[in-house]
Amino acid sequence: MRRTITGFSNPTVKFLRSLREKKHRRREGKFLAEGLRLLTDARACGILPEQLVMASGRPPHPLLDELERAVVASGGEVIEMDEDILAKVTGKDNPQAVAGVFAEFDTRLAGIDRHAAPIWLVAQALRDPGNLGTMLRTGDAVGAGGLILIDDCADPFSVEAVRASMGAVFTQRIGTARWDEFIPWLRSGPGQLVAASLRDPTDYRQAAYAAPCFLLIGNESQGLPETYEAECDLRVTIPMRGRADSLNAAVAGAVLAYEALARLEG
Amino acid sequence: MRRTITGFSNPTVKFLRSLREKKHRRREGKFLAEGLRLLTDARACGILPEQLVMASGRPPHPLLDELERAVVASGGEVIEMDEDILAKVTGKDNPQAVAGVFAEFDTRLAGIDRHAAPIWLVAQALRDPGNLGTMLRTGDAVGAGGLILIDDCADPFSVEAVRASMGAVFTQRIGTARWDEFIPWLRSGPGQLVAASLRDPTDYRQAAYAAPCFLLIGNESQGLPETYEAECDLRVTIPMRGRADSLNAAVAGAVLAYEALARLEG
Repeated sequence: MRRTITGFSNPTVKFLRSLREKKHRRREGKFLAEGLRLLTDARACGILPEQLVMASGRPPHPLLDELERAVVASGGEVIEMDEDILAKVTGKDNPQAVAGVFAEFDTRLAGIDRHAAPIWLVAQALRDPGNLGTMLRTGDAVGAGGLILIDDCADPFSVEAVRASMGAVFTQRIGTARWDEFIPWLRSGPGQLVAASLRDPTDYRQAAYAAPCFLLIGNESQGLPETYEAECDLRVTIPMRGRADSLNAAVAGAVLAYEALARLEG
Repeated sequence: MRRTITGFSNPTVKFLRSLREKKHRRREGKFLAEGLRLLTDARACGILPEQLVMASGRPPHPLLDELERAVVASGGEVIEMDEDILAKVTGKDNPQAVAGVFAEFDTRLAGIDRHAAPIWLVAQALRDPGNLGTMLRTGDAVGAGGLILIDDCADPFSVEAVRASMGAVFTQRIGTARWDEFIPWLRSGPGQLVAASLRDPTDYRQAAYAAPCFLLIGNESQGLPETYEAECDLRVTIPMRGRADSLNAAVAGAVLAYEALARLEG
């Protein structure tokens, strides 16, 4: 289906704008991804938007034309609107010329196959959507299976997280769970739980990683609760040679993930 | 000196607000750092603000009291203002209760002693102030000497970069230069220039790093110009096991820096 929207007050415009807020995303079970690059990445993963939104009078682009045909063929909707209306939807001065509405993915642990990958990233109370998206991107890069979000984290389906993931939101499995749901799930099968810790003297380069390896990173300002660390199989420390006592959470996850990758492959 | 500001239209308030914009920072040669944590870090590095700005009627805090005395003793100024005026200065709904005005540091390469540290980070056309601050923070963590910014980068003295640096803006040397100034400076002494590259098959874990080691990271979306890579002593690649072809710039810098640190110390 294909239609054109000409007014700001159109209910579809209101719906699209509402997806910038978590409560509306949750209610609708939908999220927004902006930009041709992200939409092309999604399609390469076999995921098409339910609605494809684009500016009227945009210059033709072969990838966008293909995407348009694929969306229509799959029963999705193509919506055109003036650039200034699209700018309201994407909430930026210089709007991406195209955006897609996707159904949120199932984030229950029960749906995750731990044997699908040697590495999994796990983040606890990660508050920054940019960090969350960057961890998804890193997960893709190290061939991780996905990112499991423990306790109250930023929303992986926020526009900021999706953008920072650079498409990895479509390649990485995303799980969400409370700690007391995660631990029983983890212990119901094989899996080594490794905490990035400031309390333990085991250097991250000396540790014996084993697949499937779950790398756990704590909150940006608090780190991991001590009781959580105590339940891990391994606590490893990344050396700090300067004045500061911690790394950015996404950086810590990446340094650890690349070390685990090299050791598991080596 | 100590004074209290009661009106929004006070010229000092206008001055402080103007420091949120690069052109004003450049003209004044000053920058803003917000929050007691950052100001305490600065003081621990022997750097005091020229002006200390705080909310009137703030609850007493021993670290802030000490800071206040130190600023006054050094000939600096302590300025109190109502919380709603301070919120205008810091530009946030929930303002940090304290901010400092610092003189910008000298960023000329001539002032940098390359022998001061085994590792230096170098970023080319890095556009995101958060990435820039995160690289400073990582530099501190690996014991790097500083961050050299090549071509048009985000401003290291922006509020966002200073905040993301978590105080490392005060511990790391910051250099700024065009490429054609940087290369002659680098080649005027010892120094290995290592590019994070997508073009070269040398795995970053197999490379022979040598101090002083300058780790060069390219622009977030373009990477490094090929001609720049060609001038490097070593081009190393971080493996990508997924769909994406690149990492977040600050993440790539950190993975490389931690590998170089381990190898140079090992």
